[in-house]
Amino acid sequence: RLDRERLVATMEEQATYGATEDGGLHRLALTEADREIRDWFVARLRAADLTVRVDEFGNVFGRRAGTDPDAAPVLVGSHLDSQPNGGIYDGALGVIAALEFVRTLDDEGIETARPVEIVNWTNEEGSRFQPAMQGSGVWAGSHDIDVEYAKTDDDGVALGAALDEIGYRGDVPAEPATEYDAYLELHVEQGPTLAEAGAAVGVVTGIVGFTWGAVTFRGEADHSGPTPMHHRSDALVAAADLITAVRRIPGTLGERTVGTVGYIDAEPNSINVIPEEVTVTWGFRDPDDETVERAYRRVLAEADHAAAREGADVETEERMRAPAITFPDRTVDAVRRAADARDCRHLDLVSGAGHDATHLASVCDTGMVFAASEGGKSHSPAEFTSWDDCYEAATVLANAALERATG
Amino acid sequence: RLDRERLVATMEEQATYGATEDGGLHRLALTEADREIRDWFVARLRAADLTVRVDEFGNVFGRRAGTDPDAAPVLVGSHLDSQPNGGIYDGALGVIAALEFVRTLDDEGIETARPVEIVNWTNEEGSRFQPAMQGSGVWAGSHDIDVEYAKTDDDGVALGAALDEIGYRGDVPAEPATEYDAYLELHVEQGPTLAEAGAAVGVVTGIVGFTWGAVTFRGEADHSGPTPMHHRSDALVAAADLITAVRRIPGTLGERTVGTVGYIDAEPNSINVIPEEVTVTWGFRDPDDETVERAYRRVLAEADHAAAREGADVETEERMRAPAITFPDRTVDAVRRAADARDCRHLDLVSGAGHDATHLASVCDTGMVFAASEGGKSHSPAEFTSWDDCYEAATVLANAALERATG
Ligand SMILES: NC(=O)NCCC(=O)O
Ligand SMILES: NC(=O)NCCC(=O)O
Repeated sequence: RLDRERLVATMEEQATYGATEDGGLHRLALTEADREIRDWFVARLRAADLTVRVDEFGNVFGRRAGTDPDAAPVLVGSHLDSQPNGGIYDGALGVIAALEFVRTLDDEGIETARPVEIVNWTNEEGSRFQPAMQGSGVWAGSHDIDVEYAKTDDDGVALGAALDEIGYRGDVPAEPATEYDAYLELHVEQGPTLAEAGAAVGVVTGIVGFTWGAVTFRGEADHSGPTPMHHRSDALVAAADLITAVRRIPGTLGERTVGTVGYIDAEPNSINVIPEEVTVTWGFRDPDDETVERAYRRVLAEADHAAAREGADVETEERMRAPAITFPDRTVDAVRRAADARDCRHLDLVSGAGHDATHLASVCDTGMVFAASEGGKSHSPAEFTSWDDCYEAATVLANAALERATG
Repeated sequence: RLDRERLVATMEEQATYGATEDGGLHRLALTEADREIRDWFVARLRAADLTVRVDEFGNVFGRRAGTDPDAAPVLVGSHLDSQPNGGIYDGALGVIAALEFVRTLDDEGIETARPVEIVNWTNEEGSRFQPAMQGSGVWAGSHDIDVEYAKTDDDGVALGAALDEIGYRGDVPAEPATEYDAYLELHVEQGPTLAEAGAAVGVVTGIVGFTWGAVTFRGEADHSGPTPMHHRSDALVAAADLITAVRRIPGTLGERTVGTVGYIDAEPNSINVIPEEVTVTWGFRDPDDETVERAYRRVLAEADHAAAREGADVETEERMRAPAITFPDRTVDAVRRAADARDCRHLDLVSGAGHDATHLASVCDTGMVFAASEGGKSHSPAEFTSWDDCYEAATVLANAALERATG
């Protein structure tokens, strides 16, 4: 039984780091606010008598010993970084629930055969640096660490330099030092499915696949007055074509397909200059990898058409491709059993958001618990999950993790 | 006869203030680079024995006395501010040609009956602060000075504060202290007409009218993954609709109509967040005021449709409306006579760019000379006018101004 008051108090405390005026969080990966929440988290790990290690990609682990020194540990966690002006639950709830799990083991004097580790992954959000789920991706061996160190943000700051700047380039290799028995993660759903079904908790059976990328159109800067319409090569008009296409493509592919242009940058961005260079991003997701591949080919074709219509040049770059994941029965069943044991409505679903569990699935058996998101809102200060639903989901996580740690 | 070498040398000298690596200029109104070019200009005025005055809106005047103390002066000038990453001729050529005109009067010991004043207007470009042609607009009485002081740039800096910051809020009222006989302005064409016709010089008969404004769409920020397409209200998709419409509207209105979205700002601008708030600007121009008014009504209607399609809110704000101007025969003929007297091809045309002459037309008889823009390019480092064409146009300006100053 978790301590509901402490869970809520700890959630409220973490939400003060990078707090925005409208009740949200602005805690981009490897910024000053991220340094502060990491310092706070490390202090909480030490206070819980956990052995702390920071790996060379900034992933932070706290370890509680098991009674069987040779047993593969159970890993539980999520991420503490946020979107620009995001919500207070996304990521943080999973990390705090993991912390409450080990605190409760201590409170109740429970010893587990397996060691329990809790983790905060670096840059899950993928907003400042792409790809998302970067720290877990490096750790799981999906990405080359030097390639990821060299990624830059919009100001040209390299990720490696940002890690040094906040003092979180640790000395432990960013890779599993042992076998792991299981990875379990609690996260808010971030979509409307649970709330619309009146369920508090979700048993996650898998995660959609995605493609992310960027398209840069290069037209010709010129004066917006004396330049006749037929003399123009307007990079923003080409970008607008592509934005409209991305809105339309999902409806031609699959029931669950989504597509979004979330980011745009235009140069020189002056009211009376024809835009010369415009970059937009794409993001498509679907539970079926083949559909993701079709969306990818479609967006490249649409980018070519859009550029041709304006006589502009075009360059495309895929920044992330994640396969769809199906979690194994062993972990899904452990989560479902823990949910069945609670007196709350729950249902099975596939996650439409990416999670660190995507990468962990290649390391060990992996499972996830969702807490309902009211109104389905996320990546916004309007993100909301009731403390009741937070508590239910954290309890399900703890019981599933306990089953694995003692099993 | 102007001194060609000095004209070129002075043009090259001014182009070092705010120079960009690719041979352009980045000298936004009331920035540090603008302060430097103003200091340089004031020093040149003093060196030419002109009486300098700076008005309370930062317009800088240099006066050369006439032999008839009661005669209305002739005013000649343009602007020294530039677009972001603009060209080195736009505006500067007209100011330097005016300076060369009075330098040449001195060289040749010519006395004029009328006083000659040369001027550098504040914020002609309208990129950092809107509207364009702001200093001449205030001086001519088209705008209220306090309203214009309160205009802010994208960082929220008020124009009045920016004027103080660079030390160019002068003490002379920003209004004509006497009657003026004429205002003459040389500018690069910034369009392809002269170059395509093989003409060096243009006799400008008028200026198109325009409407400028901004549209802000407000949708709902949400997660780009788990949020189904039909749950979305995407402000960037609405903006893309409008950008496409602005590209199309001119083709349905008039042969000379142009329409441009030059500026876009999206929030929170993250690859995996549905855009919540997007602002775009519009700019439409036509030689006919009624067509400008129709473009204005069309863009408002298109903004409403675009917002409705995405279930977004919309707010529109017109930031500038300038009537089409026809210059009086007296000044146009003076320019044409001066052009006829040269051994170079010239032709009559209506300016598609706005100029300070737009506002001066309500103060006194006004005329303009254009120099050909190779490739029609402007508001870009690729802007180019040969020194031959600069010299021809400056000579036409000087002779037309001399005719007025002695007439
Ligand atoms: N859960 C979450 O918001 N992850 C960030 C990556 C994504 O956009 O799915
Ligand atoms: N000449 C010029 O570029 N003026 C700026 C205002 C406009 O866009 O026409």
